[in-house]
Amino acid sequence: MGLKSFVEVHPDSHFPIQNLPYGVFRPQPGSDPRPGVAIGDYVLDLSVISAHGTFDGPILKGSDCFNQPLELDVNLGKPGFRPDMHLRPLDVPPEPNLNKFLAMGRPAWKEARASIQNLLSSTEPKLRDNASLRQIALAPVGQVEMLLPIAIGDYTDFFSSMHHAKNCGTIFRGPENPIPANWFHIPIAYHGRASSVVISGTDIVRPRGQGHPHGGSPYFGPSVKLDFELEMAAIVGPGNELGKPIDVNKAADHIFGLVLMNDWSARDIQAWEYVPLGPFLGKSFGTTVSPWIVTLDALEPFACDAPKQDPQPLPYLAEKISKNYDISLEVRIKPTGEENSHVVTKSNFKHLYWTVTQQLAHHTINGCNLRPGDLLGTGTISGPEPESYGCLLELTWNGQKQLSLGGTTRKFLEDGDEVVITGCSKGNGYNVGFGTCSGKILPSPI
Amino acid sequence: MGLKSFVEVHPDSHFPIQNLPYGVFRPQPGSDPRPGVAIGDYVLDLSVISAHGTFDGPILKGSDCFNQPLELDVNLGKPGFRPDMHLRPLDVPPEPNLNKFLAMGRPAWKEARASIQNLLSSTEPKLRDNASLRQIALAPVGQVEMLLPIAIGDYTDFFSSMHHAKNCGTIFRGPENPIPANWFHIPIAYHGRASSVVISGTDIVRPRGQGHPHGGSPYFGPSVKLDFELEMAAIVGPGNELGKPIDVNKAADHIFGLVLMNDWSARDIQAWEYVPLGPFLGKSFGTTVSPWIVTLDALEPFACDAPKQDPQPLPYLAEKISKNYDISLEVRIKPTGEENSHVVTKSNFKHLYWTVTQQLAHHTINGCNLRPGDLLGTGTISGPEPESYGCLLELTWNGQKQLSLGGTTRKFLEDGDEVVITGCSKGNGYNVGFGTCSGKILPSPI
Ligand SMILES: [Ca+2]
Ligand SMILES: [Ca+2]
Ligand SMILES: [Mg+2]
Ligand SMILES: [Mg+2]
Ligand code: NI
Repeated sequence: MGLKSFVEVHPDSHFPIQNLPYGVFRPQPGSDPRPGVAIGDYVLDLSVISAHGTFDGPILKGSDCFNQPLELDVNLGKPGFRPDMHLRPLDVPPEPNLNKFLAMGRPAWKEARASIQNLLSSTEPKLRDNASLRQIALAPVGQVEMLLPIAIGDYTDFFSSMHHAKNCGTIFRGPENPIPANWFHIPIAYHGRASSVVISGTDIVRPRGQGHPHGGSPYFGPSVKLDFELEMAAIVGPGNELGKPIDVNKAADHIFGLVLMNDWSARDIQAWEYVPLGPFLGKSFGTTVSPWIVTLDALEPFACDAPKQDPQPLPYLAEKISKNYDISLEVRIKPTGEENSHVVTKSNFKHLYWTVTQQLAHHTINGCNLRPGDLLGTGTISGPEPESYGCLLELTWNGQKQLSLGGTTRKFLEDGDEVVITGCSKGNGYNVGFGTCSGKILPSPI
Repeated sequence: MGLKSFVEVHPDSHFPIQNLPYGVFRPQPGSDPRPGVAIGDYVLDLSVISAHGTFDGPILKGSDCFNQPLELDVNLGKPGFRPDMHLRPLDVPPEPNLNKFLAMGRPAWKEARASIQNLLSSTEPKLRDNASLRQIALAPVGQVEMLLPIAIGDYTDFFSSMHHAKNCGTIFRGPENPIPANWFHIPIAYHGRASSVVISGTDIVRPRGQGHPHGGSPYFGPSVKLDFELEMAAIVGPGNELGKPIDVNKAADHIFGLVLMNDWSARDIQAWEYVPLGPFLGKSFGTTVSPWIVTLDALEPFACDAPKQDPQPLPYLAEKISKNYDISLEVRIKPTGEENSHVVTKSNFKHLYWTVTQQLAHHTINGCNLRPGDLLGTGTISGPEPESYGCLLELTWNGQKQLSLGGTTRKFLEDGDEVVITGCSKGNGYNVGFGTCSGKILPSPI
């Protein structure tokens, strides 16, 4: 443990000084969005501490990645510019997302982490002993509104859990060869819908759509097989130019961190539409991400070996060090009107067969360009045991059995159900956690 | 015909005063991108004419959709603002894309079209007789650089030609039931990759990737089945909020216009990867669009009945008026070092089974939100005859036969091949055309 903050952090908190995840928030209703870092039950306002000179390292000094420096005027030196114009008002809005910071790459991320860790440490007086600065720099997390931390250019969803692939294949195609022949060679993925990625806490409207015909016309109406998918997602850093693949052994430099993700899925819509071009409206009605991006640097103490891959991956996917992270994941469902939520599955990020670095390298091998803020979902993270399956499709075997939720049961999600995903790595006397990723189902429009 | 411009327009031109398609261009290397409209061999600079008061209608007057008005200061009235700061330099950059204008909707589009048509008409002296204004407002198209006209939030590719669906199904699954059961009920689509959509003229690097194993390991290397796909794409206007579908009979109000599109495809990569989640790296290495967005208003004289649909579509897809447009399409290939290009197919937009309005309504029926600038590809536009097939996969029947290009032949694209798509609607004495959509294949990186 060792390192401590002057901000009091409960031992069970997901956000001690060892974590320092990044998000974007509004301190008050109507105020400008700005980047922040979670510390205990507070959010540290990066636009404020940036303006107060916290980032004085060689890379971030004078950078506008969190806030426009006051001296900077975009028009300086241009034709038509007059010196009396060069001052800007004090309330130039802060950066509304983390994309600029993500584009700067790992050296900048490391420098920022060191500066913030130093500022928050129990032995550093600069913020600790400045009550008026603390007042504007630290906001109680319960009083702020969290927003999507990134502008997502493209969202890709992988299919990297072998247990999930096997279960889905068995359910839809039978127990002989449930896993497609390509699966052990390719980190299979599809393009998802970026516009409907929403922040934790956003309600999800039950989608309407078509399902398999029974008799004549296709079914049309509210989905009757609404599901969650327990996933995590990588947030892309600098990325690459079109036509220039990223080497798998350098892929980690292009991943800023991870979030929790719920890839809501309408199984009836998906099953009817997905041949031959893959999932579309069965997925695109909403995807929820958690507000805090936990950096790979914070997760490093929880790195573990990825599963051994057999057959050997092709050379472009063979990495010198193949790592996962030991992140315990849990999904709870809280039916409408009930006090308590019920744990429906417990899984772990370490079960993934294809690593996030292999996913990223595969994504670019054809020359496809990744951009800062792109979202790479892992796919549903199912473990080997039935209690660790990552979606209701698997947990209820496509509705063939009931899942008990205390006094009630579920085959698929009902209106009013709230689904809450949590994720946490347990260190020696501290956690590095992700908080929660939640969403509640609203009824379809009539 | 009737309406004429004072700008001389050759009778064969795609861009008479009846067309007025929108694009984004740089007048000189290094200058700021800005919106423009094509007229004959010139580009009309909308940022210039906007600053000179052309858009004086009730909707666009004072709007910043093409250019920030000089009077406007974002900081006016905010705390910290001093009156000596309120003037902005004269060179505030123009809008770098059309997204703001797209968001304003059809009433704004109609007003802009009327204002531009009036300004350019042979009887209006305002620009015609002002040589210094003409000098800065009209740039010879050969001297400018065309750019992507929109920031694309999401790109979706449909599969709306029955002939294409039938041919692909026959090639991959045999002549019994070549078209999947869902196809006549659903405008099938998949999410494409937005980051790799490029403007006409951008070179395309041959992708590397995996193909089916022959014996042991999968093939890995440069694609040996590189193809074009003749498509068009709709550019989305205002769009909708998450959870609120767009009625099919109002869908046309959300479509600004159309472009030509080449959905480059690596058939070997696609065939090996696409089960069960659809096309991914076989498509995401590049998609080319033409620079000029031809508005639905300009295409209206070329509207025609869409094919009769049997079975009847579900009510949410049944439109009161179901229209296509009569747009002649042609693809030419120019092998490296050759003087001439060779026509390889001639098709027409009117062959599409599912209309663009049905595509858009289907896309939102589950609540998925569309945003201004989203790109909706039609899918490959194949006609009924073999000479009208829209890709080499169909034209050479997956490489089973050769296609003659004058002195040489092709099964798939070779390095150095340039593929040029053109599209044009022929009116009475004038054209409403799309110009060209072209790209040249560069070799894979070693
Ligand atoms: Ca998923
Ligand atoms: Ca296509
Ligand atoms: Mg989803
Ligand atoms: Mg493409
Ligand atoms: Ni000012």
